Amino acid sequence: MKDIVAGVDIGGTNTIIGFVDSEGHILAEGRLSTPDYAFADDFVAALDQKLKEMMEGRDDLNLIGIGIGAPNANFNKGTIELAPNLRWKGIIPMVKITEQRTGLKTRITNDANAAALGEMMFGGGKGMKNFVILTLGTGLGSGIVVDGEVVYGHTGFAGELGHMTVVEGGRVCGCGRRGCLETYASATGLVRTVICLLSDRRDESVLRDLKSRDITSRRVAEAAAAGDIIAMEALDQTARMIALGIANAVIFSSPETIFLFGGLAKAGDALFVPVRKYADELVMPVFRGTFNILPSGLPEANAATLGSSALIWKEMK
Amino acid sequence: MKDIVAGVDIGGTNTIIGFVDSEGHILAEGRLSTPDYAFADDFVAALDQKLKEMMEGRDDLNLIGIGIGAPNANFNKGTIELAPNLRWKGIIPMVKITEQRTGLKTRITNDANAAALGEMMFGGGKGMKNFVILTLGTGLGSGIVVDGEVVYGHTGFAGELGHMTVVEGGRVCGCGRRGCLETYASATGLVRTVICLLSDRRDESVLRDLKSRDITSRRVAEAAAAGDIIAMEALDQTARMIALGIANAVIFSSPETIFLFGGLAKAGDALFVPVRKYADELVMPVFRGTFNILPSGLPEANAATLGSSALIWKEMK
Repeated sequence: MKDIVAGVDIGGTNTIIGFVDSEGHILAEGRLSTPDYAFADDFVAALDQKLKEMMEGRDDLNLIGIGIGAPNANFNKGTIELAPNLRWKGIIPMVKITEQRTGLKTRITNDANAAALGEMMFGGGKGMKNFVILTLGTGLGSGIVVDGEVVYGHTGFAGELGHMTVVEGGRVCGCGRRGCLETYASATGLVRTVICLLSDRRDESVLRDLKSRDITSRRVAEAAAAGDIIAMEALDQTARMIALGIANAVIFSSPETIFLFGGLAKAGDALFVPVRKYADELVMPVFRGTFNILPSGLPEANAATLGSSALIWKEMK
Repeated sequence: MKDIVAGVDIGGTNTIIGFVDSEGHILAEGRLSTPDYAFADDFVAALDQKLKEMMEGRDDLNLIGIGIGAPNANFNKGTIELAPNLRWKGIIPMVKITEQRTGLKTRITNDANAAALGEMMFGGGKGMKNFVILTLGTGLGSGIVVDGEVVYGHTGFAGELGHMTVVEGGRVCGCGRRGCLETYASATGLVRTVICLLSDRRDESVLRDLKSRDITSRRVAEAAAAGDIIAMEALDQTARMIALGIANAVIFSSPETIFLFGGLAKAGDALFVPVRKYADELVMPVFRGTFNILPSGLPEANAATLGSSALIWKEMK
């Protein structure tokens, strides 16, 4: 019989469930529609039911635990707290509810920390003691590994590099402050930079033909690839801000590698080449040449369930 | 017989040696003139001799190790690397030389990490798993404790919060870059802010009667206490930049406490009150109210030797 962990990735729209073995193979998959459940208790009941369905006829599998990745999750407390994209309001004791319902050991953390765990157990971070992963999506999430452990800190919420202040008095951020890294170094930040450049520069650009709300990071990447000067400049400035965030992470924990993950990271060399150049320029000299900037070693499609399952696998090893 | 550790604080001018017991009591003290020794080997020979002198007639003491705090020291490698304020050039294998000469277990780290260890073993950080110490002197040093361990990182040089970029394109820093936190949030930074304000503002100030090179943080603090408007504004801006550094440390490792140590921290409420106010304003909302900002719990006179000795005591416990 083979031990497996249920990796559960709770998103605002979908919850993806994967049975993951100790080598990071996915042996079965399932899905729930998150907003169908008005209360967390109902959701957990449905999750329990789904896990039972997925186990049916699989006498070869032994489900040993549940790892959950969720927005605003707190590892220390086992809770989901005030998540704006979920219907479940207040502070949800997710680990407790799930353990009581399923009888299985359960752990929870946020998406970016789950990504870090996945990278450590199954991806490019295997055997690394010190690394950082930046997830470049709508926002900028991060997971920080120091001495082989994810940093949760006193509150359980540590590792929010997207909310590092990098421009005093800069762009308004969703967190209520100004100048946070993610207002520049994310897909949304890239689009904001384009709009800023459209006002600042006089260059022609295909992006002038779009409504502001229709500009996406993909369209910017396509325009840049076609030689659009505004798009190219916006990508370059975004790369520089990602590099600035990396430089500030390096003086903190001196990682061996910074992994980039998520939508923006798919731009490949168009992003990695300038990010590496600027990181080398912006980092404190003593750290120059001491770290790599690499794409995540996890397959994007399964990264979330692999990472969530790693919460349990990490404890087993 | 009582076990003791020799805490050795190597400075550009003086090396202070203290025999420290496991409770943080200092049982004997010694001193060497650091620049008297052209080579590290000579220095270590003198240190060995000095330790023997200090042990003379002390049959009640059992010297079990040597902890060294030194500029540009690397804990991982046991070296002092390219220290600008020492005569010993290149990369000095300090731990190896010292262990060979004395036969005693030796560890080395930089001054700020030693301060963090001292705080953890003998100061306000006892029993805390996650805290940060900022040493506000000529520059801004830092030691970061995560999960009960000082963060050294992949290179051994982690924890350089003074070189976090907080103002893109800002003040020139000794590290060769611009906008580092320590160019604002340190005794030197305070003086630079005064000079900037003297050019920017038209207010009268006693500081206008001084040559720029004669302005010191102490004089600024005195002028502020006497109601000098430029001095007060400079202190306020410095407090705000310290708070910004704290806000950026908090999103990284979510410490329970930030200890402030060193010359500037002696300003007491004149510094702590505005730092706390601005930290509350500048920190990401989820961390508001989750940390304290406190003066170091170590006696300033002995902090360096206590901290250095803690390198060995930490391993014993």
